[in-house]
Amino acid sequence: MERGTTMEALKGAAVSAAIKEQVQNRLAELDGYIPTLAIIRVGEKPDDISYEKGAMKKMASFGLNVQSYTFPEDISDALFKEEFAKINADKAIDGILMLRPLPKHICEKDIEKMIDPAKDLDGISPENIAKVFAGDSTGFAPCTAEAVIEVLKAYNIPMQGKRVTVVGRSMVVGKPLSMLFVKENATVTICHTRTADLKAECSRAEILVAAAGRARMLDSAYAGKDAVVIDVGINVDENGRLCGDVDYESLEGIASMATPVPGGVGAVTTAVLAKHLVQAAARARG
Amino acid sequence: MERGTTMEALKGAAVSAAIKEQVQNRLAELDGYIPTLAIIRVGEKPDDISYEKGAMKKMASFGLNVQSYTFPEDISDALFKEEFAKINADKAIDGILMLRPLPKHICEKDIEKMIDPAKDLDGISPENIAKVFAGDSTGFAPCTAEAVIEVLKAYNIPMQGKRVTVVGRSMVVGKPLSMLFVKENATVTICHTRTADLKAECSRAEILVAAAGRARMLDSAYAGKDAVVIDVGINVDENGRLCGDVDYESLEGIASMATPVPGGVGAVTTAVLAKHLVQAAARARG
Repeated sequence: MERGTTMEALKGAAVSAAIKEQVQNRLAELDGYIPTLAIIRVGEKPDDISYEKGAMKKMASFGLNVQSYTFPEDISDALFKEEFAKINADKAIDGILMLRPLPKHICEKDIEKMIDPAKDLDGISPENIAKVFAGDSTGFAPCTAEAVIEVLKAYNIPMQGKRVTVVGRSMVVGKPLSMLFVKENATVTICHTRTADLKAECSRAEILVAAAGRARMLDSAYAGKDAVVIDVGINVDENGRLCGDVDYESLEGIASMATPVPGGVGAVTTAVLAKHLVQAAARARG
Repeated sequence: MERGTTMEALKGAAVSAAIKEQVQNRLAELDGYIPTLAIIRVGEKPDDISYEKGAMKKMASFGLNVQSYTFPEDISDALFKEEFAKINADKAIDGILMLRPLPKHICEKDIEKMIDPAKDLDGISPENIAKVFAGDSTGFAPCTAEAVIEVLKAYNIPMQGKRVTVVGRSMVVGKPLSMLFVKENATVTICHTRTADLKAECSRAEILVAAAGRARMLDSAYAGKDAVVIDVGINVDENGRLCGDVDYESLEGIASMATPVPGGVGAVTTAVLAKHLVQAAARARG
């Protein structure tokens, strides 16, 4: 494939800074009220602890409160639901992030139905899922899915009428993100493990999103000339290093822009969480 | 484009007959219990009356009961909700079909939240929408969307790994159908009015679904060689004749199979409704 000009890195920090500005403008309208996020964690999974730390740091840097709730891995389904119900009903809590997946003995589906949709900042309740599906922006989309859209908007990358290929069909990224792209008037193709010719589907995309959760599964052979490549993957490679679903270096000279990992979409996810928190507080206070 | 062998008509009547067999097998397990469908209609729109008639006829032919509820066009929002709540709670009613759209002064969104998901045979409640989105088949998909999948299954047309293009992004067909195709492991592209090159997106499809609601908007120029073309459109043309979104005759020699209008998907929709009714009754009775 022909080599072009230098590829531009789409940096999450810049996008997060832009979201911070929006958040602070909305905060100013709350007459000094500082919203509080509840982070609920069950067990001590390193991934959860690391995400929690990042979220707490982000909330602090945005001037928002966090209340952390931690439960032992072996808490019973009944007791966890009791505790969850208290947090859910607490008027001092404006929004909830529950780290998932929960241990298998706790019925996550029940929690999805229990969570107050108005506090459900990561879009796990049927009401919010249905709203994302319908293109109704009064709900909350999963933060990671929305972070992708925020990256494209912050860099003024047009989506309307564009061919977008999303690799991955999870309820956390692939499916909701596909619907967010449809709302932006993109022509969206959803690919997955059973797609017959993944290279063809990816390389025809003007915007390619990797959200499959497999380390460096996409390289330059999957990228079209001048494509914008968004990498949602966070994996650990065989050398214990953090890496995305995309082999970033290989895209040089082919893609026009791409998000690095780390430093790309991941840095935006918690900024979207902060944005959702302030939205939730603003809505609750009319 | 090269002309091939004769195109096969995918006939709704044959699909409906296959569904009838399934329905009767499930009915036999209900120990003589005959489920009852409530059809709710507000006003006297000819489309609604015609659909209602078709549904009543289908239920009768499948050996199922129908209870029809008709309200005047000018019924108040409050009174309609009161009446709806009664039907919704009635233990003698196993499933509900509410003809839509409702008159503008009635808040349809409230009804979507009110309807018992277990009786919501056309998948309008957030719970059922979220289940369709998640690929969870314990809910109810909109009947028309599911009818498309039933046509393909009845004719043994494989979906796994196939390139499927869906034209239209409504909540009644386009979006839920796209999710049903993803569940069948197809690679799905969602197109709409803002798609830049609709011909290219359609003609690369192995299965092309027209659900845009515009009379004969797709012709042979949009169909790939040997494609399977499914027409969900029901329109009235300039001569007052019923027609689909596809110019059926023009596909001859290009598409391998296609659904006619009338006589295609439309005939299957009420069969799916009957199937849902028996499923609802079976679930309610354990």
